[in-house]
Amino acid sequence: MIDKAFQDYYPDELSHCYGCGRLNDHGLQLKSYWDKDESVALFQPEKKHMAIPGFVYGGLIASLIDCHCTGTAAAAAYKEQGRSMNTDPGLRFVTASLHVDYLAPTPLASQLEIRGIVTQITPKKIIIKAKVIAEGKVCATGKVVAVPLPKSMLKQMIK
Amino acid sequence: MIDKAFQDYYPDELSHCYGCGRLNDHGLQLKSYWDKDESVALFQPEKKHMAIPGFVYGGLIASLIDCHCTGTAAAAAYKEQGRSMNTDPGLRFVTASLHVDYLAPTPLASQLEIRGIVTQITPKKIIIKAKVIAEGKVCATGKVVAVPLPKSMLKQMIK
Repeated sequence: MIDKAFQDYYPDELSHCYGCGRLNDHGLQLKSYWDKDESVALFQPEKKHMAIPGFVYGGLIASLIDCHCTGTAAAAAYKEQGRSMNTDPGLRFVTASLHVDYLAPTPLASQLEIRGIVTQITPKKIIIKAKVIAEGKVCATGKVVAVPLPKSMLKQMIK
Repeated sequence: MIDKAFQDYYPDELSHCYGCGRLNDHGLQLKSYWDKDESVALFQPEKKHMAIPGFVYGGLIASLIDCHCTGTAAAAAYKEQGRSMNTDPGLRFVTASLHVDYLAPTPLASQLEIRGIVTQITPKKIIIKAKVIAEGKVCATGKVVAVPLPKSMLKQMIK
């Protein structure tokens, strides 16, 4: 792992995401890193994130996979261009589609490990497959199709 | 619409879900109802739920679709059996898989309408298709495969 998370390279105006923005005090503040060819993030659920007592609700799993994979897409795009994430022009991705298979109930008390691997990278889209692991067991798998943040969305951004 | 939401029929011990539990003070407390053959829920995002300023983060959309569809699955299962949701035995569903296509940026300031329609119902699984509408525009579509809450999960429930 390196010291600085993918998400910590995002400029301030793009760092408010509930899932992964370092400036969202109410959010999950997910942090993703390279671990060789895979990306990895760790997350400790809070009691409020339950589905039923003892287990994580599905929307949290989906949120973690989503933000981890769009972060991984950004990092992979820089890597593909042979650039560090602190160089311009900035690259940021949004989710075109998200798929999650819930394989086993995910315990609430344990730290979750979210791992991603890039399976396709083109200028128009990056596909990442992910898994969520708790206590050594894969509880969910996911697939995200990430696309570059549309300029139209940036223009509509409410500052 | 009827007066009582699907989720308000869940017994107390199954009403702590972050997405839709009426007893989770920190959660989204989503409420779903029948509207003829479709199910519908309304949700007003809060400022913290942003992806970038002005737009909703993808994980919220996924969470709303997930909880709306598992609630719809429960309601549909009772309907299939010709029973009211306040009769025993209780029926509750969890998500086996979730798919979301993000079609357009979802505005943060507007009330979201989540609509579901049951496309398949068998004793082992119920499939629901969903859409999320803001300002009259479909911003996301989804599909959930819901399965009966496993007895093993209930047994492991930490009370």
